[in-house]
Amino acid sequence: MNEISSKVLKGDSRSIARLITLSENNDPKAKMIMKDIHPYTGNAHVIGITGVMGSGKSTLISELSRAYREQGKTIGIIAIDPTSPFSGGALLGDRIRMMELTMDKGVFIRSLGTRGMLGGLASSVYDVVEIFDASGKDIIFVETVGVGQAEVDIIKIADTTLVIIVPGLGDSIQTLKAGIMEIADIYVVNKADRDGVEQTVAEVQSLVDIVCSDKERKTPIIQTISKESKGITELINEIEKHKNFLIETKELQKNRRVRYESELVEIIRKRLMNLIFDESKFKDKVELLINKISQKEIDPYSAADEIIGKILK
Amino acid sequence: MNEISSKVLKGDSRSIARLITLSENNDPKAKMIMKDIHPYTGNAHVIGITGVMGSGKSTLISELSRAYREQGKTIGIIAIDPTSPFSGGALLGDRIRMMELTMDKGVFIRSLGTRGMLGGLASSVYDVVEIFDASGKDIIFVETVGVGQAEVDIIKIADTTLVIIVPGLGDSIQTLKAGIMEIADIYVVNKADRDGVEQTVAEVQSLVDIVCSDKERKTPIIQTISKESKGITELINEIEKHKNFLIETKELQKNRRVRYESELVEIIRKRLMNLIFDESKFKDKVELLINKISQKEIDPYSAADEIIGKILK
Repeated sequence: MNEISSKVLKGDSRSIARLITLSENNDPKAKMIMKDIHPYTGNAHVIGITGVMGSGKSTLISELSRAYREQGKTIGIIAIDPTSPFSGGALLGDRIRMMELTMDKGVFIRSLGTRGMLGGLASSVYDVVEIFDASGKDIIFVETVGVGQAEVDIIKIADTTLVIIVPGLGDSIQTLKAGIMEIADIYVVNKADRDGVEQTVAEVQSLVDIVCSDKERKTPIIQTISKESKGITELINEIEKHKNFLIETKELQKNRRVRYESELVEIIRKRLMNLIFDESKFKDKVELLINKISQKEIDPYSAADEIIGKILK
Repeated sequence: MNEISSKVLKGDSRSIARLITLSENNDPKAKMIMKDIHPYTGNAHVIGITGVMGSGKSTLISELSRAYREQGKTIGIIAIDPTSPFSGGALLGDRIRMMELTMDKGVFIRSLGTRGMLGGLASSVYDVVEIFDASGKDIIFVETVGVGQAEVDIIKIADTTLVIIVPGLGDSIQTLKAGIMEIADIYVVNKADRDGVEQTVAEVQSLVDIVCSDKERKTPIIQTISKESKGITELINEIEKHKNFLIETKELQKNRRVRYESELVEIIRKRLMNLIFDESKFKDKVELLINKISQKEIDPYSAADEIIGKILK
């Protein structure tokens, strides 16, 4: 076994950081180490957290982390959000709150860019989840922002997905209606000291009543004021309950299978697209075809046929 | 030439709708028709519009469309945003404003879902742009929402990208700082009757000063109050100026080349991933490997190697 592999398995922070960087740079070494550590994964509970900007996701993660740390659990935090305080996009107050976490050796924070040219959820997120998991982290938070695919993709990675809503942002409810309501395992109405919290909770509840009408488990709604640490204990209890539900119903295994499938899709996509668009073997041919498309000498579909014909058996 | 092809080229709405549906369903007929119409594309001006929820993108598109219609131009609108009024996510007031547009035969509106399981910007967006273009639409609007990849990907499709900002949403400026500032060809400070508009304009201006310090063209900032149709004429003038700039500097050709490259990437990605994950030839093998990954008998990277080895020459 590679030296980095065994250090990562022992939870060594520097080796974890090193391996994440190797993975982000598509270094061939990363692939080898990822193979080494795969058998040691599957123990961490992955919690996805999503919600619009300003909903207080990062502060909530800080509070949850503090509570989990008091239980002696270790934490990994992955922020896939350029505006997250974890990604350096913080206001001063937030930064101070984060400081405590960043000083704690039981907490590892990593922010990841959104995906590059060739599509997909920040592709290294799967690797980072595996790395944190293998390194013995008990809880892994994955933070995403926005309405869009990242928000929906998060359920492929997370065991438990929290959707954060804030009173008075009519937007949030619009978003839920628009199709992301199915992804929540727990709704968190954050900033619950704001005006309109009863109405927000009632609106979310009526959505839950519709979506969960034929389901065994009704998505719970927890109110939090994360800046005052209120509701955090209740939220942790609900996460625990959800975890037990997943285990009892064997949903956890299904979830994990979805994650591995999604990871496999991502690895294959990345490899094939790199092969076609980055390697010199095909690059010139591709360039030539794009020129021909521009000059209307060929259409994009026929060009795709030509390229695919060259690489497939 | 296929019958639908020739009808699309004549601008027949029913055939346009039909072809878009065929394309969304990956019908083999669509591919054939797309080949027919490709030589007739390249004339429309594609305007990308992005901004957070509540920034008034759809109302702005309505107002711009009305103004272009008065110039006798025809319009295609593509909404890649589940919360857009164009996608049915409208409040009553918005819906009434849209009504006028939907009744106009010179305007074709289509909303597209965000991408599916296998990644990428809603992949049919490229086809819809080509279809609108070939059918003779002069202006094509592409509306996306959120912080995230869709917002950045839009520049691969658009000739001119408008980034909409609203006073008082500190979020918007944060977003700009976080990396999407490079994508704007024109900044639109919408809802410019709100408090804080001077500060917002000043903040955007200082960002422009930094980003464009060494550029020939400084990104202009236009103030609009789209509900009162204010600033629309100025905005249309700026769009026209940008178009002329693109033509003079030959940037338009470069932009189009990027769009075709991006489209080619998308077609190839879709085909390869469908081949591996949907066709029976590989499906069973893939299922088996995912099971093995779940049981830690193999790691995802080695599984990817096995699959890729089976399909490549």
